[in-house]
Amino acid sequence: MGKRPRAVEGENLWDEITALKRERILGEAVELFYRKGYLPTSVDAVAERLGATKPFVYYHFKSKVDLLVEICERGTREALAVIAAAVALDLGPQEKLERLVRDFTAVVLDHHKLVAIYFREQLNLPEEAAARIAAMRRDIDHHLRALLAEGREAGVFRFDNLAVASLIVAGMVSYAFAWYRESFSVPREEIADTMVAHVLRSLGAEPLARVGAAQR
Amino acid sequence: MGKRPRAVEGENLWDEITALKRERILGEAVELFYRKGYLPTSVDAVAERLGATKPFVYYHFKSKVDLLVEICERGTREALAVIAAAVALDLGPQEKLERLVRDFTAVVLDHHKLVAIYFREQLNLPEEAAARIAAMRRDIDHHLRALLAEGREAGVFRFDNLAVASLIVAGMVSYAFAWYRESFSVPREEIADTMVAHVLRSLGAEPLARVGAAQR
Repeated sequence: MGKRPRAVEGENLWDEITALKRERILGEAVELFYRKGYLPTSVDAVAERLGATKPFVYYHFKSKVDLLVEICERGTREALAVIAAAVALDLGPQEKLERLVRDFTAVVLDHHKLVAIYFREQLNLPEEAAARIAAMRRDIDHHLRALLAEGREAGVFRFDNLAVASLIVAGMVSYAFAWYRESFSVPREEIADTMVAHVLRSLGAEPLARVGAAQR
Repeated sequence: MGKRPRAVEGENLWDEITALKRERILGEAVELFYRKGYLPTSVDAVAERLGATKPFVYYHFKSKVDLLVEICERGTREALAVIAAAVALDLGPQEKLERLVRDFTAVVLDHHKLVAIYFREQLNLPEEAAARIAAMRRDIDHHLRALLAEGREAGVFRFDNLAVASLIVAGMVSYAFAWYRESFSVPREEIADTMVAHVLRSLGAEPLARVGAAQR
């Protein structure tokens, strides 16, 4: 879809409208699943919030569970994308980790409701979707682990247990789903800076350029 | 209950049997809620796993939701207890934080299924139970925040944003619910050591006595 040349105006407009409709449906589903839970939310209720009908929703998503799958997959997919991009950079391990943590934090803050829904509704996912998400989570862990190992090898990071260290680092960032809200008083950029500083120090390194708040 | 003199044999035995029955009921409820979820699990199914009847369960827990409340409350209550005990110690901030992180980690590993159930089933908790648990979680945050502030004041810890720092530290430990399993290859004592080291370093301090694995 995104690969079609922008010049094909008509088709692109159609695609864009379809994408817009899907996004609006997903957005309302996120709000309802987040506030009420997946099981008690009906497709009717999602349609109602859009001023639309149930068939409108079903035209874009085959069933309620397809909404859940896309919601649960998206956060993990976007996290994996920014993490894979960061580790592929032609930079030293510390610079790569700074980028990784900054971008991963942005994804978790953006998608904190999706992450919360994923943790809540895992048992309601079809097996193959759950397996796909679990595989992406393992990929995230492998990338992080390889980068920590690379940094230790280079004498930049220090820690005792590679497996536990990478899980702890992933947890520092991921757990923001449990405390971050749009109303949170600290700006997102400052949260990301603080996250980078804590992760690097936890691995025995010092953050390089700081953009945000003053030290102490 | 625990305050009665042990000498009153008959009464103590009765109390102990009651406590044992409650614990066994809770244990089976945890397994079922964890594997299948709260809504699809019946009190019948809990009784069945015990080779008991539904009235047996209802004698000890008024309703299924009372089982959920106790499961969700227990992890938070025990975490708060060890955290309050650690900050009350007559030690320096670093020693107190080491104890806090070690004991808090032990509670999260012990109760990882309870924590997972809490995150999943929050919406199924009665309002007053949810409020009670939220208040305990705020107490945990206040204790942690006060200890970090004390350590910064003493020049032992350094970080930029107190609120975010304490949430990140709580997240490092709490998120273990998402990755720890009884089958995990690293011994619990080593996980706790690693957690202490990462938390302290993330605050710019170095862990003191290490019990576990060798450095690097």
